Amino acid sequence: MKIIVLGADGYLGLPTCIDLARDHTVVAVDNLLKRDLLVSNDIHYLHSDVELNELDPVFIDVANWESISHLVKRIQPDVIINYAEIPSAPYSMADRKQGMKTIMNNIKGNLNIIYALKEFSPKTHLIKLGTLGEYGTPNIDIEEGYLDVTHNGRTDRMLYPKSPFSIYHLSKVHDSDALAFASRVWGLRVTDLNQGFVWGHESDDVRPRFTYDDVFGTALNRFIVQAVAGHPLTVYGKGNQTRGILNLRDTLKCIRLAIENPAGEGEFRVFNQFTESWSINQIANLIYEVGNDSGLDVKIDHIQNPRKEKEDHYYNVKNDSLMNMGLEPHYLRREDIKSMLEYVSEFKGEIVNDQIMPRVKW
Amino acid sequence: MKIIVLGADGYLGLPTCIDLARDHTVVAVDNLLKRDLLVSNDIHYLHSDVELNELDPVFIDVANWESISHLVKRIQPDVIINYAEIPSAPYSMADRKQGMKTIMNNIKGNLNIIYALKEFSPKTHLIKLGTLGEYGTPNIDIEEGYLDVTHNGRTDRMLYPKSPFSIYHLSKVHDSDALAFASRVWGLRVTDLNQGFVWGHESDDVRPRFTYDDVFGTALNRFIVQAVAGHPLTVYGKGNQTRGILNLRDTLKCIRLAIENPAGEGEFRVFNQFTESWSINQIANLIYEVGNDSGLDVKIDHIQNPRKEKEDHYYNVKNDSLMNMGLEPHYLRREDIKSMLEYVSEFKGEIVNDQIMPRVKW
Repeated sequence: MKIIVLGADGYLGLPTCIDLARDHTVVAVDNLLKRDLLVSNDIHYLHSDVELNELDPVFIDVANWESISHLVKRIQPDVIINYAEIPSAPYSMADRKQGMKTIMNNIKGNLNIIYALKEFSPKTHLIKLGTLGEYGTPNIDIEEGYLDVTHNGRTDRMLYPKSPFSIYHLSKVHDSDALAFASRVWGLRVTDLNQGFVWGHESDDVRPRFTYDDVFGTALNRFIVQAVAGHPLTVYGKGNQTRGILNLRDTLKCIRLAIENPAGEGEFRVFNQFTESWSINQIANLIYEVGNDSGLDVKIDHIQNPRKEKEDHYYNVKNDSLMNMGLEPHYLRREDIKSMLEYVSEFKGEIVNDQIMPRVKW
Repeated sequence: MKIIVLGADGYLGLPTCIDLARDHTVVAVDNLLKRDLLVSNDIHYLHSDVELNELDPVFIDVANWESISHLVKRIQPDVIINYAEIPSAPYSMADRKQGMKTIMNNIKGNLNIIYALKEFSPKTHLIKLGTLGEYGTPNIDIEEGYLDVTHNGRTDRMLYPKSPFSIYHLSKVHDSDALAFASRVWGLRVTDLNQGFVWGHESDDVRPRFTYDDVFGTALNRFIVQAVAGHPLTVYGKGNQTRGILNLRDTLKCIRLAIENPAGEGEFRVFNQFTESWSINQIANLIYEVGNDSGLDVKIDHIQNPRKEKEDHYYNVKNDSLMNMGLEPHYLRREDIKSMLEYVSEFKGEIVNDQIMPRVKW
């Protein structure tokens, strides 16, 4: 198949391109905006062992209509995978400028893609990366994009109500609503992957960029780096915040499953893409145990939560769709933590301590 | 109170400013974009008998951060009423450029306002005009912004799922989600008025701009003009499409009720602002009857529906909030139709026939 991967320079985009290139024609697209953000915010990360340039990339901005529409028109892809958005809740909540940049950039790129497909390639299957964070933390089970509602004796299948807690997550909610619209009114084929946070320093092919700072790093990466650096693990608040997570290899498998089982014409399909739920405390405790068993001196600190979020909440998220298609989870185990600690230890001298503590509060 | 009215040059904005100026300090704001759209699309309308200039307006664009933030900072309003968005489903669905213009303009203005309030006037009560069209036509009762959900034995009060059928309506859904976010995370006071379509050629103070074209006119206005011009009333498709409607005077009363009963800190409140539901056929039939009784020769044509919408659907929308606050509806009666027919007859010579038929299809 002909597959365009937008956001090919990312932690997920790069392994996805390399994986799919085994048996598909992949067009890798990026505008390198994330590199700009990392450099301009003086953020350090552990380097990737494969460079985007090896994939013969197309350097265009999805927010530029002329560029993306011409690419879609020329390639006529079977599939577009869209990772090309500004990530990070803290980045979007730091100030108005970053918030507006995040939301306007993400919305515009997403709208450009659906307009380009409508006009030039309406049969293309669009696979869009969203996040479980769109749902927030409701007091009921989180279903996959839809909720069967019975109300005053009548029933309907409705879009699952979403309740984001950052401008970044709000931008993803907007995207999802626009995608639902594009399938409802224009008949596009859309899969919206509401993904949990991804862990793991390597796929079968590549060790991609590994961020561990307060803005672009996940809590798990930050804890791994803190354990290696001899810094206490910084749990935000009570640490009972619970999130869906998955391994990097499982993300690649999910993308393959979505490609091999495409959405139908006019279908807006939502998969919750994660394999297991962990609280921040559980993650910290596992790293504490494995780290101390490995001879590191790991401590845990509960620091004031810089975020507006619920620290105690119900959390039961469904993920039947991808599991039923054959996803075989790589659950987070002691040996995975051990492997990540060893990997990061190789770079111990490069770790920048002053980007570990939260600098953005909201 | 000090009240900023954004979109003061509109069909609703102008009467609102004049009405509120009786007993409040009103700052009327507009960038005259709507006039640009009307002129550049060669759209004719019946003229207002009051000009915006009489209100000593501030000519700024809400999408310009520097302008709107400085205004908010300087005025420190008790209330902001936001009508300042590009309206019209057909305008937004005509092509990509108009669609993008609508959605990016509306979202940006709305976000600028909530950022300006967060930074410079967090106690201000924001009253935002949304539309019943955000909900689409679900198969269950339409509640006021929230739905009490019981699911797998647990309960939560969630945002009511929305399902828009045009880019314009999608932009309003985005706005509502952003407003809910602003109250949830930043503690702003917000009232979102999900309004039906407004009929009536006059308030107590003013006969505002009366549009009747296929893009900016309502079906009711179009039918009135067609009856006067001797053109068959053009019902789109079956005509069983049902919508909530209200009189212009009731809109003004609703705004007053929202002002007098402000949202609390961190409250996102949604009122469904309409007084009765009518199908397009019912409206056409009433105008047919009254017109023919008045000596006009009125016919009804069912033409191919240019829109993507359900022509047969369930429609039961709640409006308890404003009714319980004391709204006394001006229901649509034969004498109202008679009065509108007489008013439009005064301008019979000005009617432009070739903007009555639908030119935008989707």
